[in-house]
Amino acid sequence: MPISRSIPIVTLTTDFGSADHYAGTMKGVILSRCPKAQVVDISHEVPPFNIYAGAYTISQAAPFFPLGTIHVVVVDPGVGTARKPLLLEASGQFFVAPDNGVLSIIADRDPNWNAREITNSDLFLPSVSGTFHGRDVFAPSAAGLASGAGLEDIGPRLEKIELLPDLEPEATGQGEWRGRILSVDRFGNVITNFRSDRFPSLESHAFRLQFGSVAVSTIAKTFGEAAADQCFAYHGSSGYIEAGINQASAARKGGVGPGDQVRIYLVNQKRQ
Amino acid sequence: MPISRSIPIVTLTTDFGSADHYAGTMKGVILSRCPKAQVVDISHEVPPFNIYAGAYTISQAAPFFPLGTIHVVVVDPGVGTARKPLLLEASGQFFVAPDNGVLSIIADRDPNWNAREITNSDLFLPSVSGTFHGRDVFAPSAAGLASGAGLEDIGPRLEKIELLPDLEPEATGQGEWRGRILSVDRFGNVITNFRSDRFPSLESHAFRLQFGSVAVSTIAKTFGEAAADQCFAYHGSSGYIEAGINQASAARKGGVGPGDQVRIYLVNQKRQ
Amino acid sequence: MPISRSIPIVTLTTDFGSADHYAGTMKGVILSRCPKAQVVDISHEVPPFNIYAGAYTISQAAPFFPLGTIHVVVVDPGVGTARKPLLLEASGQFFVAPDNGVLSIIADRDPNWNAREITNSDLFLPSVSGTFHGRDVFAPSAAGLASGAGLEDIGPRLEKIELLPDLEPEATGQGEWRGRILSVDRFGNVITNFRSDRFPSLESHAFRLQFGSVAVSTIAKTFGEAAADQCFAYHGSSGYIEAGINQASAARKGGVGPGDQVRIYLVNQKRQ
Repeated sequence: MPISRSIPIVTLTTDFGSADHYAGTMKGVILSRCPKAQVVDISHEVPPFNIYAGAYTISQAAPFFPLGTIHVVVVDPGVGTARKPLLLEASGQFFVAPDNGVLSIIADRDPNWNAREITNSDLFLPSVSGTFHGRDVFAPSAAGLASGAGLEDIGPRLEKIELLPDLEPEATGQGEWRGRILSVDRFGNVITNFRSDRFPSLESHAFRLQFGSVAVSTIAKTFGEAAADQCFAYHGSSGYIEAGINQASAARKGGVGPGDQVRIYLVNQKRQ
Repeated sequence: MPISRSIPIVTLTTDFGSADHYAGTMKGVILSRCPKAQVVDISHEVPPFNIYAGAYTISQAAPFFPLGTIHVVVVDPGVGTARKPLLLEASGQFFVAPDNGVLSIIADRDPNWNAREITNSDLFLPSVSGTFHGRDVFAPSAAGLASGAGLEDIGPRLEKIELLPDLEPEATGQGEWRGRILSVDRFGNVITNFRSDRFPSLESHAFRLQFGSVAVSTIAKTFGEAAADQCFAYHGSSGYIEAGINQASAARKGGVGPGDQVRIYLVNQKRQ
Repeated sequence: MPISRSIPIVTLTTDFGSADHYAGTMKGVILSRCPKAQVVDISHEVPPFNIYAGAYTISQAAPFFPLGTIHVVVVDPGVGTARKPLLLEASGQFFVAPDNGVLSIIADRDPNWNAREITNSDLFLPSVSGTFHGRDVFAPSAAGLASGAGLEDIGPRLEKIELLPDLEPEATGQGEWRGRILSVDRFGNVITNFRSDRFPSLESHAFRLQFGSVAVSTIAKTFGEAAADQCFAYHGSSGYIEAGINQASAARKGGVGPGDQVRIYLVNQKRQ
């Protein structure tokens, strides 16, 4: 299916940072190849080389973009090695990225995903460097799609793509699950990988959420209703269970960061 | 009055930071609901929860945007509490924000402002979280406006909106005013809340401007004309009296930050 | 030649930072004067006052934008002084900047550049501050161009523009060149000013590259093929010789930053 939007949207999610020319250069490539594209920054501040954080970031933003949006996701510690350039079609959108697991959460949501290895070098810049595939491979491939290239022009189908291990929490028995911290946001909120729709509502259960030196057993619906300085859990806007402190950093209080372990213990009884 | 621009402009000013997905997600919501909108980042690096800094930032940028521009301003420590979602029409532009004072300077400039509480939940995302109204309430309401919703579709009129205290300096007598630091910019320049148009020109008065450990009594028109290492005052591009040091940080020299006190003492006589 | 793109592209490269309102305000000016313009951020995080870094940044991104693109580059320690506002036409693109050397690398690439001093104050905002020419002079001049102003409307021709000294390395004899570090990117990679096309391929020469406390004599094509913790040189995507460490910072290891000295010693014999 060719993209047929009158104004194709191409988003960028990278770990290139905002200071260097890298993100701007990718925008130039896209606009040179598809002048009508609207290029949208999601983030260029994914922690360097952190595929896990990149997977989380794109998975949070993508569902809110229109069908047909083309997302370019470049967190690519293996740039220049044998890892494949990947086009994934999932949930009615397109994702151009290295095949290193950065699209794990996106693929997990749509069992009917289609993937292609991007092998058609006509899509690439004429000279491909060993270190900047964002510019030389991913941006121009996305622009090619935005300009109407069909999936059949991209390369061969992939039946299997790389998926990150440990994306899902593990039950350790006796009402306890062990998970990990997906992200710590600017406000110091701790986003766990406990999906709200797979756990019972914390409002009707006694629970203990533990990360680093912090154990949380209270819940709040909003930051405003929480007591000052008290760490609380909540069903976050991310779709995961999160922990925060009103106007302070829960992550700092617990001494934790992305990737660190988190546990939840649920008592299977109503509180009230 | 419905917005009728052929390309509606929707700007974003938030304290969400540039690293997380939050700003990108808001862009997705806007483009999903109003595909022809042009989304423009003003800043996502307003100091967290700092309503004062948010008020300053939007008040500086907005006047330079076209009539009809829709500005989304989200600095929202009370997200999820009873604070109202606000639409303000002022100076021919539209502002969508929490009603917490972040539009104080904008409202101050146009005595004929109109305000509405945004109550029409048809404008919101189908499910509104307790913690991310930028995505669920403010972005889609702005997109609704950009797509042609009329003010009458938004919600009831508000006769009164929240205004920040201490926005204006206070005369303490004997030629002295006490104010506060509105902002410290990247270069370390100190922006006071002494409006140039309400104070006499510093070029024709002896004065002393004091903040932290620094007292300034010289004036310069440009950074280039100032002596090296010397702190000087100037009538800033912001419309306020500012203080700076050529290629160094006046704020660091004085040991001050946004919100800190500043005083000016004016001697009511011509220098020359 | 007037710009005649249906959607004029105006890019921004500044040292204003992303936190303050400055970049957003410039976007407002451009969209007010040229509503159909597409404004594209390249970087607002050029190190403050660092003309050298600004020159590098725009020189890397510009070649990947379409012909006719208008680039606004504001790194301007001399704002408000006698330094000229400059319009440079080079390689089929337009550059609006202070005439302080920030366009040195751009001009170096196209011996047929044309330059004008921007003197036509009809292009400026009605009131020009002493400290924010990005808003008052450069952004509106770029928007004027984007709206169809001809070069003859800008101001008089300049036969000579400011150029940065020391842009090129110097041969010190006996196979050694002394250069400087153009940039350190987010990943800690060291970008030298040794242009790959002016030096022999490091793959076929024994060499020693020295910066700070680090001496490098191995080469890699990609980060993935390098041994862990080992610093290596490579022909970078920038067109210059660079040095990096796989998933670590070569600049930190060497204790160096932009502008610092770097030396390369070449042994004129094939390795294999």
